[in-house]
Amino acid sequence: MRFALALTAALAATPALAQKEPIALRDMGSFHIGGRLLEVKGQPIKEVVFTPGGVPAKVDPNGKYQIEQMYVQYFLQQKAKGKLPLLMWHGGGLTGVTYETKPDGNPGWLNYFLRKGWDTYISDAMERGRSGWTDKFKGEPIFLPLGDPWERFRVGPIGSWNDEKAKRAIYPGVQFPTDAYEQFMKQGVPRWTTTDNEIIAAYIELVDKICPCVVMVHSQGGGFGFRVAEARPDKVKALIAVEPSTGGNKDKVAALKDMPIVVIYGDNAKDHPRWGKIRQNVVDYAGAIKAAGGKVDVIDLPDIGIKGNTHMVMMDKNSDEVADVMQKWLVTKGLSD
Amino acid sequence: MRFALALTAALAATPALAQKEPIALRDMGSFHIGGRLLEVKGQPIKEVVFTPGGVPAKVDPNGKYQIEQMYVQYFLQQKAKGKLPLLMWHGGGLTGVTYETKPDGNPGWLNYFLRKGWDTYISDAMERGRSGWTDKFKGEPIFLPLGDPWERFRVGPIGSWNDEKAKRAIYPGVQFPTDAYEQFMKQGVPRWTTTDNEIIAAYIELVDKICPCVVMVHSQGGGFGFRVAEARPDKVKALIAVEPSTGGNKDKVAALKDMPIVVIYGDNAKDHPRWGKIRQNVVDYAGAIKAAGGKVDVIDLPDIGIKGNTHMVMMDKNSDEVADVMQKWLVTKGLSD
Repeated sequence: MRFALALTAALAATPALAQKEPIALRDMGSFHIGGRLLEVKGQPIKEVVFTPGGVPAKVDPNGKYQIEQMYVQYFLQQKAKGKLPLLMWHGGGLTGVTYETKPDGNPGWLNYFLRKGWDTYISDAMERGRSGWTDKFKGEPIFLPLGDPWERFRVGPIGSWNDEKAKRAIYPGVQFPTDAYEQFMKQGVPRWTTTDNEIIAAYIELVDKICPCVVMVHSQGGGFGFRVAEARPDKVKALIAVEPSTGGNKDKVAALKDMPIVVIYGDNAKDHPRWGKIRQNVVDYAGAIKAAGGKVDVIDLPDIGIKGNTHMVMMDKNSDEVADVMQKWLVTKGLSD
Repeated sequence: MRFALALTAALAATPALAQKEPIALRDMGSFHIGGRLLEVKGQPIKEVVFTPGGVPAKVDPNGKYQIEQMYVQYFLQQKAKGKLPLLMWHGGGLTGVTYETKPDGNPGWLNYFLRKGWDTYISDAMERGRSGWTDKFKGEPIFLPLGDPWERFRVGPIGSWNDEKAKRAIYPGVQFPTDAYEQFMKQGVPRWTTTDNEIIAAYIELVDKICPCVVMVHSQGGGFGFRVAEARPDKVKALIAVEPSTGGNKDKVAALKDMPIVVIYGDNAKDHPRWGKIRQNVVDYAGAIKAAGGKVDVIDLPDIGIKGNTHMVMMDKNSDEVADVMQKWLVTKGLSD
């Protein structure tokens, strides 16, 4: 009887024992970096009621304005295993939320790499999310209709979107959690296409502050990552480019010859009418780095047996499996225990 | 000699022992909540080059768009001491960053309340930061010139701003870290004044998902907090209003009669030409709650010996001292160990 009670108690305790260890942080926080002051002159004073029913305030629009700064949030390990900080840069029309909880509610790559012991910094590219705006906006911002990324991010083939959910075709075995597609679209933010230089300037200021480091980039962030790496090859000690939409500047590849670089593409990219060209452009850029004496590993996930990944690899159901590939690559490069 | 060595070793170990305990989280993550789909029809197809040098993509602007969703980030304790989740809502022209690291680099109220054991949720009001936009925007967004909050947030008296830093007057003993004022201004985001209903709708969806809870609000968030509390008195179990810029709806105060509420104002508010009126409006609203049988504690910090606080109490040098007042109030109400 006492044995039975003890056994019951032991079994009852099992779920608690089986729970994950806590994420233990010595510190966490955020800051804004970069940007500049813009001066405005000769405008009339406005009276603004900020809140309906509130007390009017006089606002003099003349003066200096803070613009082009970038938001960065960081999580620092109680016991780091990564040898350097890991910076995670998102793609176009999105923010650092890309790497947080997945649209299906499961943990994303931020939590994965935190649990692997990396001091991690996630930023919102200048212009987006919690970052500042710029006077370089031209024309209207771009908003993506609900169906656009379904096709452009390779959940389904071109022409597969249909507003009636039952008719939305997908690539066979696609790993994106299609039931959470609308939830993914809630992460979208407006974007402009005229702000690359200001975005890159803020990233360089971040690298100058935090690095040496490892930089992970996604999609539009690929071009930013390569260009920042070209500008700061002494600071970026490794670059992980996930589904980059462009390479960098072929005239500057010599700067990257000592930098370990890995480029990763998901499934249905090589033969895709648009992604096939994008991928080839980046492969050509990688070839130029190699010709200059550098090392770039280009991994097409299906070639190593990981199938069904979309452009949003970090949100796919097998995101941990892909993260394992990156983590092992980092260990191989001596950047993590 | 061995004693001396042991003593040296003990002294060397002291800084490590004196370090803070880690922030231990059973989980952390984020989600977007609320919003709706907006349909756009009859627009021509556009060709967009998203990245200079990139491959053009056809974008059909017709279709449904996700709008009005709200971003929420959460940190959940390994060992919670707060009895309910704590939701922190920011003020106008800002985002949830308000509660993160202070502009002077010291820990803000997010870390304070995490270290006190609260499961904590920080959101960006709809329209701002990582949240969605709306079709209710009217006119241009408001941007604040560098000097505006210096005076309007009571760092210095009206007329005290001067672009030459040496001439910026401050209130005597002001607690805002004036050397970090420009850093604070980097947290600002554009705002519109026509979106209150959509902001409140998303907050109500958050409360319906997460609560019962404690809600902390600041500035413009005050009006949102009171109105959400009126709409969900069964879900909001306590309300902390820090420098609210408005109260709620006096016709609905009966709903709040069982809800513990504390209203906190900093220094130089009562007699301020604008804040004096704002504070009086809120005190009158609090009076209406009390007349309906409710309990509201109105705390003017200078009256309890805490002096020099600006509108941005959570960024002032003595922010922990003010947080202690709130934490003790929560303990008094039985909401935390």
